[in-house]
Amino acid sequence: MHDIELRQYDIRTDLALEAKEMAQSGKDGRLTGITTETVTEDGITITRMSVDNEEGAKAIGKMVGRYVTLEVPGLRNRDTELQDRVAEVFAREFEAFLERVGVSRNAKTLIVGLGNWNVTADALGPLVVENTLVTRHLFELMPDQVAPGYRPVSAVAPGVLGITGIESSDIVFGIAAQTKPDLIIAIDALASKAVERVNTTIQIADTGIHPGSGIGNKRKGLTREILGVPVIAIGVPTVVYASTIVNNCIELMAEHFRRQTDNAAPILGMLHAISGEERLQLVKEVLQPMGHDLLVTPKEVDSFIEDIANIIASGLNAALHEAVNMDNTGAYTR
Amino acid sequence: MHDIELRQYDIRTDLALEAKEMAQSGKDGRLTGITTETVTEDGITITRMSVDNEEGAKAIGKMVGRYVTLEVPGLRNRDTELQDRVAEVFAREFEAFLERVGVSRNAKTLIVGLGNWNVTADALGPLVVENTLVTRHLFELMPDQVAPGYRPVSAVAPGVLGITGIESSDIVFGIAAQTKPDLIIAIDALASKAVERVNTTIQIADTGIHPGSGIGNKRKGLTREILGVPVIAIGVPTVVYASTIVNNCIELMAEHFRRQTDNAAPILGMLHAISGEERLQLVKEVLQPMGHDLLVTPKEVDSFIEDIANIIASGLNAALHEAVNMDNTGAYTR
Amino acid sequence: MHDIELRQYDIRTDLALEAKEMAQSGKDGRLTGITTETVTEDGITITRMSVDNEEGAKAIGKMVGRYVTLEVPGLRNRDTELQDRVAEVFAREFEAFLERVGVSRNAKTLIVGLGNWNVTADALGPLVVENTLVTRHLFELMPDQVAPGYRPVSAVAPGVLGITGIESSDIVFGIAAQTKPDLIIAIDALASKAVERVNTTIQIADTGIHPGSGIGNKRKGLTREILGVPVIAIGVPTVVYASTIVNNCIELMAEHFRRQTDNAAPILGMLHAISGEERLQLVKEVLQPMGHDLLVTPKEVDSFIEDIANIIASGLNAALHEAVNMDNTGAYTR
Amino acid sequence: MHDIELRQYDIRTDLALEAKEMAQSGKDGRLTGITTETVTEDGITITRMSVDNEEGAKAIGKMVGRYVTLEVPGLRNRDTELQDRVAEVFAREFEAFLERVGVSRNAKTLIVGLGNWNVTADALGPLVVENTLVTRHLFELMPDQVAPGYRPVSAVAPGVLGITGIESSDIVFGIAAQTKPDLIIAIDALASKAVERVNTTIQIADTGIHPGSGIGNKRKGLTREILGVPVIAIGVPTVVYASTIVNNCIELMAEHFRRQTDNAAPILGMLHAISGEERLQLVKEVLQPMGHDLLVTPKEVDSFIEDIANIIASGLNAALHEAVNMDNTGAYTR
Repeated sequence: MHDIELRQYDIRTDLALEAKEMAQSGKDGRLTGITTETVTEDGITITRMSVDNEEGAKAIGKMVGRYVTLEVPGLRNRDTELQDRVAEVFAREFEAFLERVGVSRNAKTLIVGLGNWNVTADALGPLVVENTLVTRHLFELMPDQVAPGYRPVSAVAPGVLGITGIESSDIVFGIAAQTKPDLIIAIDALASKAVERVNTTIQIADTGIHPGSGIGNKRKGLTREILGVPVIAIGVPTVVYASTIVNNCIELMAEHFRRQTDNAAPILGMLHAISGEERLQLVKEVLQPMGHDLLVTPKEVDSFIEDIANIIASGLNAALHEAVNMDNTGAYTR
Repeated sequence: MHDIELRQYDIRTDLALEAKEMAQSGKDGRLTGITTETVTEDGITITRMSVDNEEGAKAIGKMVGRYVTLEVPGLRNRDTELQDRVAEVFAREFEAFLERVGVSRNAKTLIVGLGNWNVTADALGPLVVENTLVTRHLFELMPDQVAPGYRPVSAVAPGVLGITGIESSDIVFGIAAQTKPDLIIAIDALASKAVERVNTTIQIADTGIHPGSGIGNKRKGLTREILGVPVIAIGVPTVVYASTIVNNCIELMAEHFRRQTDNAAPILGMLHAISGEERLQLVKEVLQPMGHDLLVTPKEVDSFIEDIANIIASGLNAALHEAVNMDNTGAYTR
Repeated sequence: MHDIELRQYDIRTDLALEAKEMAQSGKDGRLTGITTETVTEDGITITRMSVDNEEGAKAIGKMVGRYVTLEVPGLRNRDTELQDRVAEVFAREFEAFLERVGVSRNAKTLIVGLGNWNVTADALGPLVVENTLVTRHLFELMPDQVAPGYRPVSAVAPGVLGITGIESSDIVFGIAAQTKPDLIIAIDALASKAVERVNTTIQIADTGIHPGSGIGNKRKGLTREILGVPVIAIGVPTVVYASTIVNNCIELMAEHFRRQTDNAAPILGMLHAISGEERLQLVKEVLQPMGHDLLVTPKEVDSFIEDIANIIASGLNAALHEAVNMDNTGAYTR
Repeated sequence: MHDIELRQYDIRTDLALEAKEMAQSGKDGRLTGITTETVTEDGITITRMSVDNEEGAKAIGKMVGRYVTLEVPGLRNRDTELQDRVAEVFAREFEAFLERVGVSRNAKTLIVGLGNWNVTADALGPLVVENTLVTRHLFELMPDQVAPGYRPVSAVAPGVLGITGIESSDIVFGIAAQTKPDLIIAIDALASKAVERVNTTIQIADTGIHPGSGIGNKRKGLTREILGVPVIAIGVPTVVYASTIVNNCIELMAEHFRRQTDNAAPILGMLHAISGEERLQLVKEVLQPMGHDLLVTPKEVDSFIEDIANIIASGLNAALHEAVNMDNTGAYTR
């Protein structure tokens, strides 16, 4: 269908923050049903956002729930001191998030690293899992010998459909049914609408993982409804749709004309004409030769992904285990 | 306990073929309850062995069941032509094995790659999984479009306890409960008693995987009893216990003395004295400085494991899908 | 300087074919000093191009020399049969190219894999080197035992400045001075102006490698002048500059307006206004938030690069050694 | 020749410390021409040894020169705190070693990581190189901007003959001729005679690398004589010859008999009979089925090698650059 076919060239983002920005830019004002709070600490911008009701959800196209976003443009410079600080802030925010969601301090936790380990841009989840401190087996095999300050944590990377032949959600469901965690944390690579947010942004959400979100085209979700326990999603944008770059480009050109032109009238008419469906048609045309809508990623994706996976793993270890803090978390992530 | 402590320095092998050799060498004769048939084709020795009853099982310390072993010393030379031939023979033997076990031609199959992907010598299972052709999702998502000659195959590498915090058998059980396969094929790295069999031998068995077998110290097994469907185990020895090397050495020295000595009487007395418990005490002494019984592996393990994992994956693809044969199986293993 | 600063946002390509296309599109006609010949075989388009003199070189901004380009859009589908055919065609074209350049059949050859093995999009060269058949040591150590049909080939991946602290050209120069090859083949990842050519195009050139070409920002070249022997460059575009995508987008919008508008006059005026320097200004503005001109690559870069590196390695093995052909080249690339 | 053929089954070690132990055990006394000093600090045993003259060299079969050995059995437990301490001690000893050898504080340094990156047990050198801080390019490109406390360091992994077709020494010679370092540090994996020293011992020597040393069968050395500048070798035993295990076993059996027997006379006669050539014959016999003398390595080699490579890289960074110390060296090794 024509309508749906073009829809896929619309600007797509997995970040609630960007969805809100887009919704606002159209409205020139505040959105109802959305609460946000932003603080900046030494190069790290933290936005705590809440989609309070269906009105808010509809306005920005994201689910009712809590979202925390860390934006750290400086991560591009691969400064290890900043990386340590981000891990610390992430740990603090994640711990507070767990509390707000009502997860108890010793909730048995299953960490799920979604994505394809053979595709660097999609390997965030598996990389985090590789670096998390797992302890569940110690609680099972020698409960008397586990030092205080730890909780039972297990971690799996279920792979993707093309590798296993099984939906990742089915694998997680099967494992959860067998091991009965109280909390599931799912890590996934996301798509952003802004190249500058790629590999520099972390989103925490209590909404779980939904079909079609992330960059791996899931067909089934991982949600509290399905799994029966809270599912907290941690995501990092690692790619941008090529269509989004083209969309951005068209918008910036329009802006450019608006600014540069005295005799703006006829031009602005033109530019309004290319809003909506016609713009999508134009995007489609630009992308035609590639055959499909490419997901693009900065060339240096390999090292950025590894850095941010380490940040998240360190932060999770510190947030989940009282006995782990930022001074010794390095000992657990290798 | 003294008794148990020394037991661990006894010669240990996961190969039924070696267990039989050892049992025979003590008895100088035929074993009852064991049937074997051996053929050699162009550098590949195939032994089809059956442990027919409990008497046989007790005699060799392996379970009642069918075992097929391929021995190919030439694999050490990394000759790709030989590798292709081994894959072909493996595919043929495996297909015949499935038939004998009574598995139907379109049985939905789950391939399980056991072991730790971070330890080369234990990575056989995960490497095979990486190279198997998975099709289950095609049958699920577009059953009408799957060409004839394929069956639904899925494949997972469940990791090991230290990585996930979950027993691999629990992960497999959970996934099997969710996806309901008719057949499970479990691939695992094994320990041999003979260095020359390392990375040159493939064992197929219908007995499943048992606690403590393989090189990864499993605590729970993967068997038909637990999983409710046939479990076929494919194993390759990739390591030898250091204690086994020492044991071999003592035996060969004894032999040496027997051959070289005219005045054998007092010497043979000495050598008999070091059989049994005293020999184990001696082994323990030799290994003392290492703190524990090492599993050793040839230095070139990396490339050998990759080669043999490819052979098994190619062979499985050809054996499981009629449409795949040795001319095109390369197209599926990358 | 303002001028230079904007220059970097111009459309940049390492493919002579694209440089020619761009030069032609501006001129609506034939270019003098450039000869091209194009044939298409079963999904593979081969363009043999020659920049005959300085006039031609200036027209397209590429050096005087011979260029052969293979375009294979179908490589995106990862069809192994097509990959084999491309390797065959590449081997044939490369052999003919060597002949035209005047390289003898037993010229001692050094293969140089340029690029950073830690960055997937830049790892083409090292990956090819990993899969080429090296024979030089056999000629050195046991010349009598080398079968006919081989020539002495060595292969190195010199790394990049940030990894070694040494210019890759200095490393190659040092190794060449020590080992005295008659021919150097340098493989490098390139930038294209068209996303659809990424990972689907192979360029062969007899011009060597020049400073600033490829995606790794070389400061010194690898040329016949410097090294004293012919240097043949093999390149595959693996990335596109983000600025190029924006440039393409602006051009396509202009085209769109031209087509869609009756009352074209004022609009076309606008669009001409954004040609040249102003367009670059606009590109710069779009890219501002990222801080610099990103190189982007399709998300699936990992597997595409591995495929095309295998194609090139197989093709090189067959082209360099008479005894190797497409039936047995697989035996040499692992 | 019979004599040479058996010689290869003699106990072989690349550690000067072990060579001395073996020489002493035969002599029951002090060796002339060898000076040693041993200190133990908190689980780390440091032996500073000097082979003072040809007499000493002949006695132990190692070259005249200085040797420092760090033995840390506790490294098997993968305790990160101990690893940090070992890196610190290594940095201190290495710095003192440089001073004794007479290397100036700003000597331009080339670090050479010998070995085969495709074989885990031989990958120590390449792994260290991957983690060293290289700065030479900064001194070349922007000398004014390099902060004080650094010296020019470059680093290469030349690969092995089977991969490049070129002797690693030829590659190093070519690069050194081109870049003119004042000091070369060569890192290599070694063979030990004791399994318990594998992956727990670091040797520093000012004798360079000699043909046939290390586990990679070099045909040419890297020495001050050849390269014209001091060559300091850093080695870690990662393998043991299978023949060494068998030799150890025979010796321990002899010892066992001596202790256990009252009527020792005839037995001791037997055991003396198997010293020397006959013992080697016995070793050869034991190893016959494998076709050659295997190098064996503990199964967990992958993680041990990574750990010790990190220790050496951290230590080198701190020893070579005054501005780097153990608190910030982690920032440079990734």
